[in-house]
Amino acid sequence: MTQHVLTARQFNKRQLKQLFAKADRMRVVLQSPLLRHKLVDEHRGLVVATLFYEPSTRTRLSFESAAQRLGIGVVSTENASEYSSATKGETLEDTIRTVASYADAIVLRHKEEGAAEQAAAVSLAPIINAGDGKGEHPTQGLLDLYTIQREKGRLDNLHIVIGGDLAHGRTARSLAQMLGLYKGNKITFVSVPALQIGDDITAYLDQQKTTYTKTDNLIEAVKTADVIYWTRLQKERVSNPGIEAGFVIDQEVLDAMKNDAVILHPLPRTNEIHSDVDTDPRAAYFRQVENGLYIRMALLDSVLHGRAS
Amino acid sequence: MTQHVLTARQFNKRQLKQLFAKADRMRVVLQSPLLRHKLVDEHRGLVVATLFYEPSTRTRLSFESAAQRLGIGVVSTENASEYSSATKGETLEDTIRTVASYADAIVLRHKEEGAAEQAAAVSLAPIINAGDGKGEHPTQGLLDLYTIQREKGRLDNLHIVIGGDLAHGRTARSLAQMLGLYKGNKITFVSVPALQIGDDITAYLDQQKTTYTKTDNLIEAVKTADVIYWTRLQKERVSNPGIEAGFVIDQEVLDAMKNDAVILHPLPRTNEIHSDVDTDPRAAYFRQVENGLYIRMALLDSVLHGRAS
Amino acid sequence: MTQHVLTARQFNKRQLKQLFAKADRMRVVLQSPLLRHKLVDEHRGLVVATLFYEPSTRTRLSFESAAQRLGIGVVSTENASEYSSATKGETLEDTIRTVASYADAIVLRHKEEGAAEQAAAVSLAPIINAGDGKGEHPTQGLLDLYTIQREKGRLDNLHIVIGGDLAHGRTARSLAQMLGLYKGNKITFVSVPALQIGDDITAYLDQQKTTYTKTDNLIEAVKTADVIYWTRLQKERVSNPGIEAGFVIDQEVLDAMKNDAVILHPLPRTNEIHSDVDTDPRAAYFRQVENGLYIRMALLDSVLHGRAS
Repeated sequence: MTQHVLTARQFNKRQLKQLFAKADRMRVVLQSPLLRHKLVDEHRGLVVATLFYEPSTRTRLSFESAAQRLGIGVVSTENASEYSSATKGETLEDTIRTVASYADAIVLRHKEEGAAEQAAAVSLAPIINAGDGKGEHPTQGLLDLYTIQREKGRLDNLHIVIGGDLAHGRTARSLAQMLGLYKGNKITFVSVPALQIGDDITAYLDQQKTTYTKTDNLIEAVKTADVIYWTRLQKERVSNPGIEAGFVIDQEVLDAMKNDAVILHPLPRTNEIHSDVDTDPRAAYFRQVENGLYIRMALLDSVLHGRAS
Repeated sequence: MTQHVLTARQFNKRQLKQLFAKADRMRVVLQSPLLRHKLVDEHRGLVVATLFYEPSTRTRLSFESAAQRLGIGVVSTENASEYSSATKGETLEDTIRTVASYADAIVLRHKEEGAAEQAAAVSLAPIINAGDGKGEHPTQGLLDLYTIQREKGRLDNLHIVIGGDLAHGRTARSLAQMLGLYKGNKITFVSVPALQIGDDITAYLDQQKTTYTKTDNLIEAVKTADVIYWTRLQKERVSNPGIEAGFVIDQEVLDAMKNDAVILHPLPRTNEIHSDVDTDPRAAYFRQVENGLYIRMALLDSVLHGRAS
Repeated sequence: MTQHVLTARQFNKRQLKQLFAKADRMRVVLQSPLLRHKLVDEHRGLVVATLFYEPSTRTRLSFESAAQRLGIGVVSTENASEYSSATKGETLEDTIRTVASYADAIVLRHKEEGAAEQAAAVSLAPIINAGDGKGEHPTQGLLDLYTIQREKGRLDNLHIVIGGDLAHGRTARSLAQMLGLYKGNKITFVSVPALQIGDDITAYLDQQKTTYTKTDNLIEAVKTADVIYWTRLQKERVSNPGIEAGFVIDQEVLDAMKNDAVILHPLPRTNEIHSDVDTDPRAAYFRQVENGLYIRMALLDSVLHGRAS
């Protein structure tokens, strides 16, 4: 059976543990020329296609670097929408069947929710969902969780502050769900009421018996936090721009934070985290970016397992 | 002498046989990690440029995958027209000389007929024509012929139905010519009179003593066919849309076909082949796509023979 | 300390000599499958990012070919300006930090002067400046100088004619400066008064005790020249188009030149060098293009020295 990566929710705790252990090994391998050469040699001759129906250079570069560090060749397009469907009326299914003839795996980015599942239904090559519209973006969720594991050494019994536009932010919603897998976590959702976390997520957390609160008091929330997961509070969605004040990570927030707390952000950021914060050792968002490379290497290595030698 | 691939017609029967045998070997090599690694090792350090003056993602991905499966690096542009000629007035010849300094072979796609020959006249690196406007698209012709060889075990004494827009379709015209190389073939051209095959092709077939007929009766034609090569009947070229009816491959056509006949299509398709047909074992068009990979691997391997070790 | 390549002026004579010797070795390596395989094996698993905020296909392909001939993987974008800053307001610094997590070196092309230095200030990976607006384009300067070394066997005691739009031409200005490093050179700047070389360059040459003259008499200038470095005289910058006459390299100029003189041009050219000149052995501009590959291989190999094995 072909092994697709369609949503972060498809992984159970055991699988996440294995994936994160493999990501840890990738980190070690890249530090050693000898191990790196061995890894590359195993995958040589394999090819991954990055099929992007909308540009997302950050995500694409991360996957393409992951592939090449494994020794896998890459064929790529950021204009897939001009390639087939739009221009000549080809269905996504036909395009996927075609690209699956050229590549051992397909990293798919699409504007429409459900596109990755639609692709997986016909593809002989594994599909890795690199974001399908308002749907899923599993590798972001996995690298967020992996970063918490790396930074805090555990995924349970943590107090996590999740802030920003929680009503629309895919990454924040996804992280909240994944934290519900682990025991003893407490989540504080920080936002203005209009952009607070959806009832579907809190219902899920109730079911998982994960404690949570909602607040608009950032300073109070961070005082006991182990992890602060920050996202953009999109200006165009906030009627009164004045309310943005108080939702910026700056020196005042750093002062209120515990010494061993860490700040995550899916990036790109604009001004919701001051650049002064970057030099604080608790700022983990660039380490988080690097973790994305290891997670994507681990995923590609896993789905191509049967093809490498 | 530099070995260019400019037109499918440059190959004689002996060379086609060799090329198809090499494509067969590529198929076998890709199934074996050991053989695949050996192949890659021979080509490492070589570089192919895909220089596309118009986007053709399907063709580009196929060539780039072929190169990388051989262990050859790829440098690529789909915006070559913005790169030089258009922007700064550089001639195609200067661009080719430049790119030939960077790459061991150049895969060229151009809007204008004759561009590949123009490039070959100055290039120190082999030029592979990936389509030059209304001119040639040799790898498509080669993979079509190779697919017939694979599916039917021979290239002679076949009844081939070729249908769709035969007046403008480059691939249909090219296939008809190539079939004329082999003895005992009978071709039935299926189209509306306005889009029937050109007199230049039929004159050539007369000269080759290849039997052919023209008809607009698809069902009758397929009853004795060994191969059905189907292409798009472009709507904008047909005055009365009603005549399109009867030029769709569907269950009725499948029912009329022989059990060992096969259906080919250069893709992309729109609705001229029903998706219901895909699951019929006689639908060979996705196997045809895969064959394109092996043919392109075989061609790249051949033109780079002197450069690999 | 991370080793960036920001300007050609950062290299002293000893470093230039080493770099050119390494470029010579790259030329030899590419001729030998055995040596080429060894080179590739050393770098496998490494990745370079080509981050282009404006398209420059020629420069990008040259760097990407250099990387792949070394066995280094490439991740690439020509639309970096649409990627981050423009679309979501990310700073160049954040983008660089991100890409430096994915790649072992970053080749950066930017519209704005100083961008490469700005990137180097935050990057953990070496930055190679591939042109920053009106600023620097060090690899062009280095390959120009390397070509003179290759063609003439020395970099001192030469008479070099530099012509075209010297007021705006970055490459002409840069070459004049670099020639000032070496003893006994004489430079003749050929242009119309409005487009003559700037006072900043002549002041520098005075300081370096490099002899120079300015003239608009091309034929007289080339009679004793060892090297003729020609660039475009951009029409839109010349008020009277008639003055362009006399600034074209053609048969008349070839007749006036010494037998062992050579003609260089950074390319692309339009009509300022007649295509008839191309077959003259003194036309060195396509050899110069090829030298660019070796110089870029040598640079990439140098900055990645600590990462390869």
